[in-house]
Order: sequence, then C-alpha cells, then structure tokens
Amino acid sequence: MNFLIVGVGAIGASFLAFLSRAGHQCAGLVKKGQELDTIRVEGIWGEFTQRVCTITSAEDLDFVPDVVVISVKSYDTESALKAVEPAVGDKTLLLIAQNGYGNYEKAVDFYGKGKVILSRIIYGSEVLERGRIRITVCADDVVIGDPSGNIDEEFMTKLAKTFSEAGIPTRYDPRVYQYLWAKIIYNCALNPLGALLEVNYGYIADNPSTSFLMDRIIDEIFEVLKARGIRTFWNSAEEYRKIFYEELIPPTRDHFPSMLHDIKKGKTEIDSLNGAVCKLGWEAGVDTPYNRAITEIVKARESLSKDC
Amino acid sequence: MNFLIVGVGAIGASFLAFLSRAGHQCAGLVKKGQELDTIRVEGIWGEFTQRVCTITSAEDLDFVPDVVVISVKSYDTESALKAVEPAVGDKTLLLIAQNGYGNYEKAVDFYGKGKVILSRIIYGSEVLERGRIRITVCADDVVIGDPSGNIDEEFMTKLAKTFSEAGIPTRYDPRVYQYLWAKIIYNCALNPLGALLEVNYGYIADNPSTSFLMDRIIDEIFEVLKARGIRTFWNSAEEYRKIFYEELIPPTRDHFPSMLHDIKKGKTEIDSLNGAVCKLGWEAGVDTPYNRAITEIVKARESLSKDC
Repeated sequence: MNFLIVGVGAIGASFLAFLSRAGHQCAGLVKKGQELDTIRVEGIWGEFTQRVCTITSAEDLDFVPDVVVISVKSYDTESALKAVEPAVGDKTLLLIAQNGYGNYEKAVDFYGKGKVILSRIIYGSEVLERGRIRITVCADDVVIGDPSGNIDEEFMTKLAKTFSEAGIPTRYDPRVYQYLWAKIIYNCALNPLGALLEVNYGYIADNPSTSFLMDRIIDEIFEVLKARGIRTFWNSAEEYRKIFYEELIPPTRDHFPSMLHDIKKGKTEIDSLNGAVCKLGWEAGVDTPYNRAITEIVKARESLSKDC
Repeated sequence: MNFLIVGVGAIGASFLAFLSRAGHQCAGLVKKGQELDTIRVEGIWGEFTQRVCTITSAEDLDFVPDVVVISVKSYDTESALKAVEPAVGDKTLLLIAQNGYGNYEKAVDFYGKGKVILSRIIYGSEVLERGRIRITVCADDVVIGDPSGNIDEEFMTKLAKTFSEAGIPTRYDPRVYQYLWAKIIYNCALNPLGALLEVNYGYIADNPSTSFLMDRIIDEIFEVLKARGIRTFWNSAEEYRKIFYEELIPPTRDHFPSMLHDIKKGKTEIDSLNGAVCKLGWEAGVDTPYNRAITEIVKARESLSKDC
C-alpha cells in the first residue's frame, strides 16, 4: 500500500519508519528544514534504523497514496488538511492519528464522510531527538474505524492487518469513536493537572484536591456527552470513575503527561481536550466550569512560556 | 495603653515595633525559639531599631492588656485565640489584624460580640529576616471598627488615634466589614492566580485567560455575598470589576502576591479567601466552581511543596 504521513513527530515518525521498513511506498510531509533521511526506532517494539523519504510539499509526491495519515498536533490539523489536498486522489482515504476531539470532525468537514478513517492510538512514543524515537509503552492495539459507517469494512480490516504486519499492532473496530472518547476522558482528567503541577498520574489520583478536580472534570464530560448524544463504554460518570481509579490509573501511576513538555514550549492540545469539552458543552447549553477553569489556567501558562 | 500582640510576622512585628517606640507597654507572644529583643523597621515609614519584649506564654504576661492584637496567619487563628485566653481580662478587647474571612467570626465565637474589634489592613510589610521588616507600601489607613455595634465608638476612635500617633495611620469606621470584604474580593481574584503562575498583578489583569477566571471568581463572590446578605461598597460584580480594573489594579501592577512565597512553603491562607467563599456559598446553596477549582489547585501545590 502507499502512504503519505503528515507530521513526523512521535506518532507520525513511528508510522513512517514501520511502514517503510515493511516495504510500503511511504513519504513523510514535513516543514522545510525538517527533512529526514532515516528514522531510528528504539524501545519495546525493537531497535532499527530505517531509510525514509520526506517531502515538503504534497505537490512533490510522485504517487497517489491509498491512505494519508494525519499525525500533526491538533492545533495544526486545519493547515495539514489543506496541505495534503494535492495528494488526495479519488480513492485516497485519510486516517486521523491524533489526540483529542475535533480532528476527525474537521477532516470530515473538509473531505466529507466516507473519506476519513478515525483511529485511537494508545501506544507511547517519544521523540528523543529529531529522527530518533522510542516506543515506551503499548496499552492496547491501535483501533481504527469509521464513525460514519460509510467506509468499506474490508478495506479497514486490510489496513489494520497491514499496520499489524508492519509492527504496529492494530485492529478494526466500528466502535472507534467510543475508544477515542475513552482516551479523551482519561486525558482531560489527568493531562492538564499533571502538566500544571508537574506531577505523575499516581500523585494526581492520590491527592484529595486533584482527585476532587478530576471527579468534577469527569462529571462535566459525562453531562456534555449525554447532552450531545455521544456514547461511551460507560453508563455514568460513577461507572467510569470506578474503572478509572481501579484499573486505568494503577499501571500508569509513574507516567507524566506529554502536556508537561508542551506547556513549557507554550503550546498544548488543551483546545482538543478540556477546551473541546467546554465548546461542546456550550453549544448544548451545559455549563462546564471545572473544565473551563483548567483550560484557562493551562492557556495562561502557555502564554507565559511564550512570553519568556 | 497596654498591648499584647500575637504573632510577630510582617504585620505583628510592625505593631509591636511602632507601639513600643511610642512608649506603650507591649509584649509579643511568640513560639519558643522565636523570641526577639529588637525589631528593625525599614521602608516608607522611616528606619529605626526598637527594643521589644516577647513572651512564649500568655501566662508570663505581667500586665493586663487593653487590647490583644491577633496577627497570626489565618490557619493559626484558633490556636492563637486559645493561647491568649489567660491574658484576656474583663475589659480586654481583641483586635483582629489579619487577612481574609473567618478570623473575626472565630474570635466572636470564642469571646463573644462586644469583645472583638475588626481591622482592615492594607499597608504592605515584609519580613526581610527574623526581627527585620520593611514597610513597602500603604494604600490606605488601617480601618478599625466593630461589625456587631457593641463596642464603644469613643474607645475605637481613641485606639485609632493611638495607632496613628505611633506611626501606623489608622481611622475608625463602622463600615469596617465592607472594607474587609473589599480586600477579600481583591485578594481572591489576584492572589491564587498570581501564586500559581508566579506572575504580577498586571500580567493577571492583561492576560485574557486569567482575567476571564478573575471575572468568574468575582461573579461567584457577589452571588455568595448576596445570598448571605453581606454588604459591600458595590451593587454588583460589574460595578466592582470596573473599579477593580480601572482603579485598583493600575497602582499595584508590579506587585506579586505574598501567597507566592507561602505556596512554596506549603501553607497559604487560601481557606480564608477563595476557600471561605466556597464554604459560605455551600452553606447558602450557591455553587462556586471557579473559586473551588482555584482553591483545590492551590491546595495541591501546597501539598507538593510539603512533600518535597
């Protein structure tokens, strides 16, 4: 299969390296000055150095990709969707390989239902230096699917198999939107507090003040989801919280959120997490003061990092 | 007049030094190991070194004080009220010289109405080292008064004159509770955000995220005050905010909140500020999520400083 991968950060670089190694025709679309000849992969999925191809304009692509993988930070989604337009053929599909809410929706607005596959990615990858990444942890397969139900299931099953055979464990599941929201809720609860206080997930769960705030953040998210008719795997905030504290947190207690690094650089994905919850709530007439408070404090910290 | 001053931090030390210099019989009640022989005063009200007397138990006091000045941090109010009991004679009055809500109320619970004078202190004093303070700024006279209306006005006028003549500009005003609340609102809006973000008041006012949060904090306070029947100098949150941004902030733009130092030591007066607003709101059935969010984040930072 042929792939164009947009953004070669922690996730994009892993797709580019593993798919290239498996012999698929791949190119990475990067900004000028960010070109790479090789990607070095380390960590739990093995160590190797792979020759890769990067381009700085989608017009330079010399093949029509079967799939365009969008793996930029959420705040760059709109410009990425525009940038890949010259490479998107009639049969090309897009794969959203990003965090948070709103990326899939933007892609559907731009390219239409039936063109966009959504994924939930829950393996950890970190950029050690440019062109060198480490796969740190894998909580579950990548899940791919089409929330709109327009894309051929057979194709998605084949795509999942292609990824898995290339070394990135992946499965097709039509409930991908529920998987994505499960990750969004988890990230909304933990990431901003971890980033603001510079503590790990275990600390946030144990401290009565931060666990109080997480509980309110989760309450509000479930109110918003209910008002918006968005389904999750859980029937209530209480049901989710039980799983959250008893099953989800324990294996990731020592983890620090990536937002901690982002906040110091002055740009986080807060608008696709708690900020998106506030926007969804506002549109549905649901007040979300705890999500809003944490969003604004993160934004103030972003500004501060930029000003310094 | 005779004074017992409890707590010789930035404010208590200034009372002890100025009143002692004016020839009043004074003692400072301090913890063991914190005794002082002199207090060095610097800053806008002149520079001098004053011999002072400190004791570590109220039972050691060899005179009956006319006034016991309570100037400990708010979280130590209850133990201070108990500690001074042996020194409180039939005619002794207490003067609350502290920040935030709840100190006056605790003193009235303990000693009864008619025994407690409230003050609003709005000069800045900082401890440079133990026994050495600097008076940095004076926004207005100290205001003293009795919210319960039980204490002789003539006595309070005389007390204000005594303080003023000793070098601490003070006036009697029956609206002292309104003056106190004016300072509480100001502190609730600015102190926790300044302490969390480590920025000055000007930054908090200019940044759209922090000014949004301050506006919500102020909204909630006015709702709580209305529900509790507590009067302020303003008819609405909007009216206050106009004064806040246009008149109160500009002269203090470069100021950093003292809570910034307190938070790093692991103990702030948040429970007498935004935390007190939440408690007053809760009792009156008014939800205060923004004040609660900021309170809990400050508490989490306190815990973190204590743990380190």
